[in-house]
Amino acid sequence: MSARLDQLRSTTPLVQCLTNTVVTQFTANVLLAAGASPAMVDTPDEAGDFATVASGVLVNLGTPTAAMYQAMRAAVNGATATGTPWVLDPVACGGPATRSAVAAELALRHPTAIRGNPSEIRALAALVAGSPEDNVPGSGGATGGRGVDSTDAVESAEPAALALARATGAVIAVSGPRDLIISVPDSVPDSLPQVTWLTSGDPLMQRVVGTGCSLGALTAAYLGAENAGPAGHTPAAPDRHAAVVAAHAHAGAAGILAARTASAPGSFAVAWLDALDALTTDHLAELVGVNDH
Amino acid sequence: MSARLDQLRSTTPLVQCLTNTVVTQFTANVLLAAGASPAMVDTPDEAGDFATVASGVLVNLGTPTAAMYQAMRAAVNGATATGTPWVLDPVACGGPATRSAVAAELALRHPTAIRGNPSEIRALAALVAGSPEDNVPGSGGATGGRGVDSTDAVESAEPAALALARATGAVIAVSGPRDLIISVPDSVPDSLPQVTWLTSGDPLMQRVVGTGCSLGALTAAYLGAENAGPAGHTPAAPDRHAAVVAAHAHAGAAGILAARTASAPGSFAVAWLDALDALTTDHLAELVGVNDH
Amino acid sequence: MSARLDQLRSTTPLVQCLTNTVVTQFTANVLLAAGASPAMVDTPDEAGDFATVASGVLVNLGTPTAAMYQAMRAAVNGATATGTPWVLDPVACGGPATRSAVAAELALRHPTAIRGNPSEIRALAALVAGSPEDNVPGSGGATGGRGVDSTDAVESAEPAALALARATGAVIAVSGPRDLIISVPDSVPDSLPQVTWLTSGDPLMQRVVGTGCSLGALTAAYLGAENAGPAGHTPAAPDRHAAVVAAHAHAGAAGILAARTASAPGSFAVAWLDALDALTTDHLAELVGVNDH
Repeated sequence: MSARLDQLRSTTPLVQCLTNTVVTQFTANVLLAAGASPAMVDTPDEAGDFATVASGVLVNLGTPTAAMYQAMRAAVNGATATGTPWVLDPVACGGPATRSAVAAELALRHPTAIRGNPSEIRALAALVAGSPEDNVPGSGGATGGRGVDSTDAVESAEPAALALARATGAVIAVSGPRDLIISVPDSVPDSLPQVTWLTSGDPLMQRVVGTGCSLGALTAAYLGAENAGPAGHTPAAPDRHAAVVAAHAHAGAAGILAARTASAPGSFAVAWLDALDALTTDHLAELVGVNDH
Repeated sequence: MSARLDQLRSTTPLVQCLTNTVVTQFTANVLLAAGASPAMVDTPDEAGDFATVASGVLVNLGTPTAAMYQAMRAAVNGATATGTPWVLDPVACGGPATRSAVAAELALRHPTAIRGNPSEIRALAALVAGSPEDNVPGSGGATGGRGVDSTDAVESAEPAALALARATGAVIAVSGPRDLIISVPDSVPDSLPQVTWLTSGDPLMQRVVGTGCSLGALTAAYLGAENAGPAGHTPAAPDRHAAVVAAHAHAGAAGILAARTASAPGSFAVAWLDALDALTTDHLAELVGVNDH
Repeated sequence: MSARLDQLRSTTPLVQCLTNTVVTQFTANVLLAAGASPAMVDTPDEAGDFATVASGVLVNLGTPTAAMYQAMRAAVNGATATGTPWVLDPVACGGPATRSAVAAELALRHPTAIRGNPSEIRALAALVAGSPEDNVPGSGGATGGRGVDSTDAVESAEPAALALARATGAVIAVSGPRDLIISVPDSVPDSLPQVTWLTSGDPLMQRVVGTGCSLGALTAAYLGAENAGPAGHTPAAPDRHAAVVAAHAHAGAAGILAARTASAPGSFAVAWLDALDALTTDHLAELVGVNDH
């Protein structure tokens, strides 16, 4: 994780965000504080071309208009054409029908990573992987719960996450008190999955809008930096799983740092941005619990 | 007010916001800090269905696109079908013609509450109630003033607020240095109105964008919590007037608390969010002046 | 500059912003903190009429939808009809083709001022003035660089800024570590240009989204205040160049003040808002380096 933190800051990846209107400002500030560069290029006219030059792309379904769906498809086409890594955040998947259908459609377009809360991941897995332990949305199985709030525990979503990883080839990240990152090695579909549990963060992160959404953007930033290869070295093969883990460690460790100085949501949001900037590799080693298996 | 503060936090009402693009992030953070749960579901495709499951709905006319008008009508239909309480904030009513006409149209769809500044309430009353002391917008009577700024005193809007309460059945809240909340008892149209004057808040609230708009959202949250009935008891008949008063007391008392530690607009906004979270029932009793008559 | 700071606060100009979705909230808060009044009236239906009553208008191309382009043209028509000063911020000009074309179209509609970073100003000059030292976007000359980031130094953009000033009649402001403000006197197209270099600001301003975009809004505010004439005096002829300089001095001096108390991006954004409010004429004299030639 430490090498990747340095890599992010030395490469300043340019992250194109197609995200919801609630969190655009905060997401841009999170990227700037962490060491990346934001570009909110999200119109149907511009999104496709820009995705061919961006380092990474975030597609977040938070407040999807018809024009935004068009722009998202254009961005995915552009990213696919050039191999730009992109992250899908299927916000409230399992809730509104059209949104869930678009989430499923995009999940099958080979995103580099998919990040969501347990309810969203379970609902998306039911749609694209027909995972046996989950039913389709609305049938009493996985549900979108209360809008974007998850009503499920992260642990409960592990089988769905694995099914989703196998069905899409994406690295799957499930956010919660502990974060689960799961993937199956490229082109070895039946191989053993790589599973990482991260322990970090602070409960106040749930009291500030956009901490989850901006983690999706930070994941795209780390994936973009990963593609650039280690600074000063011949690029090694990018490790998508490790990049997603590093993004979650950065966000979570900053949450712990922020909670040292702030104990209420307004000042916590400010302190978290400061901590994203101040975070060192020593902090990562000290603050983040990692369990690979 | 104290029982209702506890009720808000124990029920965490889910508030659907159809609001202007300037204040979406801040409104979501205000709801989270106060103890509610935000959901910015505001597209024509999704708004109607979501209003049937939300605890409360905010309809704010701040930056109204054609699609947003569609979504607002859908949300009002959904809320009406299920009895979900909803709040109309007629931003800049009396200014742009289409916006004023839509404000009037929605005001007659039986919102649970209408919240605005004195200019907006006077302009809306002139449109829907033909209140005698106010003329139609642009004729030199009630005006939208300078955009969303009110140029009128709260006291001057009392007759208009009463006329609007009688014409719409809604609880009318007029925000300013003192807040006026006025309503007429259900199904007794000619009965004496219930009138509450609240003294709280701080002038710095006018220097931070979205304090008024997010008060509309908080009002929807309190109305949603009110419907859930007192925690641990058989639901009593909901008291809409008291719920609107409690929302204004929460926001205003937090303003007083925030001004104890912040004296400039940037830090005040942060402190106000912290205070919305920290506010206790003791603070309410100590800080808010209430005058019913 | 000092007289203009007082003038801003005594006249509280009403600034209509047609700006990108990333920075609407922050821009409104910047205007409120500095002493102006924001109005985000940006729909095709409302933008034209409102521009006839606003004190100043900002047109920022950051996240341009088709509807926003319509609204921008309507606002420019309204502002032109009544002589309302307006500011063009050609965000990412030189990047996406349609956006660059609209920037060129609007630049030729006689904005009162144009504010951008060096890359944007060079690209716009190449489009509307065919400035010899710059090539058209994409040809290897001026480029939009990495989205909204400028890859050029301010000094390198001086010839382009002069060509743009001559071609459009606008005051041209190029933002960077030093700010360049350049204009040619009205109706004397071949006269010597007026050139001002400002030294102020802090590098942390680049780590907070919207400091540049909101400077465009503040420029519109100062131009609006300038039109109102010195407080308590017969209006003198407005000095557009001096108003643009004063806006940049206000923003830059506040950046220096903010950096005295904040050293990371989250708290710096809060401190900058506080400093925009707290800034005195003594601070301006002490903190801003001005070099006219």
